[in-house]
Amino acid sequence: MFPSNSFGSKFIITDAGESHGPGYVTIIEGCPSGIDLSVEDFLEDLNKRRPGKSKFVSPRDEKDVPIILAGIFEGRTTGAPIAILVNNLNQNSKDYSHLEKTFRPGHADYSYHLKFSHRDYRGGGRSSARQTISRVIGAVIAKKILKSKNISIEVNAFVNKIGPIEYPQPFKIPKSIDPEINAPISIAKEMKESIIGAKKMGDSLGSQVSVIIKNVPKGLGMPFYGSIKALLSYSIFSLPAVTAVEFGSGVNASSMEGSDHNDQMSSNNDNKEVTFESNNHGGILGGISTGEDILINVTLKPPSSISKKQVTINKELQTVDLEVNGRHDPCLGPRFCPIVEAMIHVALINIIE
Amino acid sequence: MFPSNSFGSKFIITDAGESHGPGYVTIIEGCPSGIDLSVEDFLEDLNKRRPGKSKFVSPRDEKDVPIILAGIFEGRTTGAPIAILVNNLNQNSKDYSHLEKTFRPGHADYSYHLKFSHRDYRGGGRSSARQTISRVIGAVIAKKILKSKNISIEVNAFVNKIGPIEYPQPFKIPKSIDPEINAPISIAKEMKESIIGAKKMGDSLGSQVSVIIKNVPKGLGMPFYGSIKALLSYSIFSLPAVTAVEFGSGVNASSMEGSDHNDQMSSNNDNKEVTFESNNHGGILGGISTGEDILINVTLKPPSSISKKQVTINKELQTVDLEVNGRHDPCLGPRFCPIVEAMIHVALINIIE
Amino acid sequence: MFPSNSFGSKFIITDAGESHGPGYVTIIEGCPSGIDLSVEDFLEDLNKRRPGKSKFVSPRDEKDVPIILAGIFEGRTTGAPIAILVNNLNQNSKDYSHLEKTFRPGHADYSYHLKFSHRDYRGGGRSSARQTISRVIGAVIAKKILKSKNISIEVNAFVNKIGPIEYPQPFKIPKSIDPEINAPISIAKEMKESIIGAKKMGDSLGSQVSVIIKNVPKGLGMPFYGSIKALLSYSIFSLPAVTAVEFGSGVNASSMEGSDHNDQMSSNNDNKEVTFESNNHGGILGGISTGEDILINVTLKPPSSISKKQVTINKELQTVDLEVNGRHDPCLGPRFCPIVEAMIHVALINIIE
Amino acid sequence: MFPSNSFGSKFIITDAGESHGPGYVTIIEGCPSGIDLSVEDFLEDLNKRRPGKSKFVSPRDEKDVPIILAGIFEGRTTGAPIAILVNNLNQNSKDYSHLEKTFRPGHADYSYHLKFSHRDYRGGGRSSARQTISRVIGAVIAKKILKSKNISIEVNAFVNKIGPIEYPQPFKIPKSIDPEINAPISIAKEMKESIIGAKKMGDSLGSQVSVIIKNVPKGLGMPFYGSIKALLSYSIFSLPAVTAVEFGSGVNASSMEGSDHNDQMSSNNDNKEVTFESNNHGGILGGISTGEDILINVTLKPPSSISKKQVTINKELQTVDLEVNGRHDPCLGPRFCPIVEAMIHVALINIIE
Repeated sequence: MFPSNSFGSKFIITDAGESHGPGYVTIIEGCPSGIDLSVEDFLEDLNKRRPGKSKFVSPRDEKDVPIILAGIFEGRTTGAPIAILVNNLNQNSKDYSHLEKTFRPGHADYSYHLKFSHRDYRGGGRSSARQTISRVIGAVIAKKILKSKNISIEVNAFVNKIGPIEYPQPFKIPKSIDPEINAPISIAKEMKESIIGAKKMGDSLGSQVSVIIKNVPKGLGMPFYGSIKALLSYSIFSLPAVTAVEFGSGVNASSMEGSDHNDQMSSNNDNKEVTFESNNHGGILGGISTGEDILINVTLKPPSSISKKQVTINKELQTVDLEVNGRHDPCLGPRFCPIVEAMIHVALINIIE
Repeated sequence: MFPSNSFGSKFIITDAGESHGPGYVTIIEGCPSGIDLSVEDFLEDLNKRRPGKSKFVSPRDEKDVPIILAGIFEGRTTGAPIAILVNNLNQNSKDYSHLEKTFRPGHADYSYHLKFSHRDYRGGGRSSARQTISRVIGAVIAKKILKSKNISIEVNAFVNKIGPIEYPQPFKIPKSIDPEINAPISIAKEMKESIIGAKKMGDSLGSQVSVIIKNVPKGLGMPFYGSIKALLSYSIFSLPAVTAVEFGSGVNASSMEGSDHNDQMSSNNDNKEVTFESNNHGGILGGISTGEDILINVTLKPPSSISKKQVTINKELQTVDLEVNGRHDPCLGPRFCPIVEAMIHVALINIIE
Repeated sequence: MFPSNSFGSKFIITDAGESHGPGYVTIIEGCPSGIDLSVEDFLEDLNKRRPGKSKFVSPRDEKDVPIILAGIFEGRTTGAPIAILVNNLNQNSKDYSHLEKTFRPGHADYSYHLKFSHRDYRGGGRSSARQTISRVIGAVIAKKILKSKNISIEVNAFVNKIGPIEYPQPFKIPKSIDPEINAPISIAKEMKESIIGAKKMGDSLGSQVSVIIKNVPKGLGMPFYGSIKALLSYSIFSLPAVTAVEFGSGVNASSMEGSDHNDQMSSNNDNKEVTFESNNHGGILGGISTGEDILINVTLKPPSSISKKQVTINKELQTVDLEVNGRHDPCLGPRFCPIVEAMIHVALINIIE
Repeated sequence: MFPSNSFGSKFIITDAGESHGPGYVTIIEGCPSGIDLSVEDFLEDLNKRRPGKSKFVSPRDEKDVPIILAGIFEGRTTGAPIAILVNNLNQNSKDYSHLEKTFRPGHADYSYHLKFSHRDYRGGGRSSARQTISRVIGAVIAKKILKSKNISIEVNAFVNKIGPIEYPQPFKIPKSIDPEINAPISIAKEMKESIIGAKKMGDSLGSQVSVIIKNVPKGLGMPFYGSIKALLSYSIFSLPAVTAVEFGSGVNASSMEGSDHNDQMSSNNDNKEVTFESNNHGGILGGISTGEDILINVTLKPPSSISKKQVTINKELQTVDLEVNGRHDPCLGPRFCPIVEAMIHVALINIIE
């Protein structure tokens, strides 16, 4: 129903690429003319997204350098579509050759096989999370456009849970964040120990990421199928490994009573400023933003690539043993933060006038 | 970005209507010709959706009788768009006239005011859940089309949690269901007592609904933006009052390790039948169906309309007291079941060949 | 690829209905809130579209009275979708019963049979030009929106050719128009005689309609697939009976040289006003409006319903004789004018900010 | 309303690129897996499209070699999006530097300036017809898909008119075609003389191209907004320099009577084969294919780039003299043939099951 490789109607990103192919191409449509844009603008965000920066993430170490193929003239956008190529430099296809015929549990190998039959199995091929490069590229441009319009939406994502370690106030932005795992500094050490423990066991950990969107213009979104909740959940579930998306009170709403859950509004009658006493509604009522922070909680499964020995099936549908090597993230939360921030920028710019 | 009042690309439903206007009109596009269709076909599902049938739901008692305005000739579809009108018969606008200027907490009154300024405040106007009639109407036709193609997808929704009362196995279809609250008979009595208790206190209860989709064709969906997770979460969050959508392991995935979470596949080597030992992936890997049951858990907030006295603001942004009367559901789970079943049929038919 | 019954992305009209069914339903999405709208607003334009007003058009005499089913509250739009029903009052299905099995030449009977097998044959069923009611309804609302934004686009259509009688200056708006056939008064008498002559012979006449769009904002449209030419030709060919669409110099461009065809620009250097010496480009260059009048010439085939005896085939694919009775237009140009004006308003409002 | 740089819903091409930028990138979505595809597959069609092959077309001589960046694994498609890069090798930006500030008559310079302000003026930048590379690339893949489904649609385009020289039977495929100008051999010599004559005068010529689509499956297309006429006219007017699109009888329909225009159907009662006595309807009735050849006539304006001295305006809106040099086509018909054939393949594959 929705295109598989394209997102947006006003601001559109379309991409192609595989983990171990030549590279990733992203075409961005809907950027107005006259915006300064250069290769340098992409480097910081691409660097945040990439793996290889610490022992808590995949060691695939690749400096993602974008090449601008179209849409920029004399350093500024022209209103024409922008094309960006990021070459794959550090792919190591030997790592994966033994997986040609084996379907790894938890991965898309089996479902891609069902759907496509002929598939690029190297590093997950098209199903690789490396595809998120295109969302980061889109977001860099989206943020430039928002800035040019003086719209100061601020999307903050941080890891609030890794395995058993949980941050008690998921919707309060922590004072400081550990850059290696994008988690509150107060619990980062414990989280890191959990990750190292899991890695030692050849295992991986599930996690949760909080997203707090500040300075949301009032009245964004539309009723029903135009709801911001519908749009953002769609955007987030289009990312790999997401198992749950909650807004505001989320799953806890099921244990609450209406009198507690209703966010009471009041006003300082003098300046007519409206205050919400609480934010169970997560900034969205009837699909439309109220101006309160949009609050999202995203759950990520433990990465499917683990070094523990597993049993699985192969292409001939025979049961076989599996040992996965290669370069993997032991926990997805840390790397998911910049990705979900990017995706949300791309989503929201599509509904901002 | 997405149209507000229309869903689908291959099978499209579009509707208009307000709670206390003349009625709801739904146009359905994409139905092939030659399918038997009559007013009678809609009655059972519309009756399941409607309120007024027990003390556990809103007493608005309205026999929703569809009028076919287009698309049917001599009892069969013609491939032309189908238009269905359901008149509003039992609206009682006096109930709401005092709400012209008051924004009820938890409702879309304030956000619609921000967005639209001029709004139909009677019974929530456009924001009323009565809009879900059009999803039920769409699903009746979708189910007829699926049947004509011998596709036997089965969507089962039941209430697995109301306030503190929780069903222990949310993804096991209960042997029998209490028809008044669409919950497992084993805990229905307790749930009803909770509801009655909350009503007595002038309050309402949050809830959760399990959705188990059986007989899913293998290989439905596409990677990334074409993911079934993205599509279904979009569909479900387009419904009112949803605060969380989980697939498979859902929020629990955050506490799991990869070795537990990975659903091990094996095969009886003789007949090449693939078996999953568990279903944490909820029937979807890489956005694509594996043939396992699709498992969804939906959280619904406690209804915002409560009879307890509340404090809120009015159109002039002054703080005022509020006492809501009218006809309301004390808990949304029971009525949500047929609605989410309908929505999922409409969503899935858009990605089935 | 495009939906069959729906047009637009920002301002969307969707309709259902058949010539001899209960009526036509149109849902209009994308109208902002706060615009005055009542049944009266539609009457003038619906009256212009309807047949039965003179001997030069079909005698089907039907006062099309719209019923507003949704989207209006206290006389003003609310931002919710608007639904309008126009009942069919003067259908006369006996006229057509003998056509159940016969495919009329030039009509969609055979192609609908190929596509849909089961079809409503009464008065053309879904293929009837009565569907254009929904375009007129959409345009009434589009014009109100444009007016509310002080955009004064003016779409003028008139008949410039009926059979052999041709107006020499198709892109000059005539001083006065004969309201019975929407043609320049200077040649209306001759045209009417032609029509009467054809009717007497049991025949019908082809025609052409000029469209001159004045006060077009500069810079509308986009390159390539977003071209105004692409959009308008799409819109116009979605109407029945159109065989050619020309912009500016149209087919004559094939006989011209570049030095003649290039519209020379000059400027009064003082006020920087740009003047085009000619308008072969018809107001559109590179898909984008230049501010010059948009000039379109539309050719309409002679109506396929003629009373002359014809040979054709029936549902069993046997050759049979055919005599068509019923109520028909002897020439389409006169009634096409208000329809194409409406369609163009609906198209353009989708690309105006 | 429609995306500017993307075409299709089931089979989607999206491109970016400018005449004198690094190159053109095309992303193709909707290609099934398992289809053989290599660089060699593109060469013949890209070679047909490119200029530089004779004195009757632009001398820009560029061997367009596609580089496959994504979507192919071991020589076959995978169902993932395909990305193709064609580098610009022969751009010569000095040719255009003097045009930075001057708006050439007939070109999109002025309208792009109105719309985008900052534009790439080199060789037309984004407005260059070199963008049609992406349509040719899309068509190569579309044809492979059609072949894999044993659908043998055949699209034939040839030049039927250049300036005053006209082929008398535009909808009869000529026995042999002059490859230098894609025109019937019988009149090619005369046409070439016309072109040479115009070139000598520093001028250019308008032209017309016939398109005859054979082996069209019956029942393609949908009523109204889903009409094949609407789709194809949209596709064709999205190409540069088109001033008119006619189907079947085209503009001549305006001079015809219904009894002549109606294409009489008959059948050999034995084998039930349906025969049309004529094809004024151009293979499409009610928006749906009848199985007869689809007949289209396209008019192309004389190229705007002429070497004759012209008067125009500059960026400061002052009147200035203009002498255009550079590499230009003296007549567009010859090069338009492979382009429109490509575009039609891309359009039709979107509506074929």
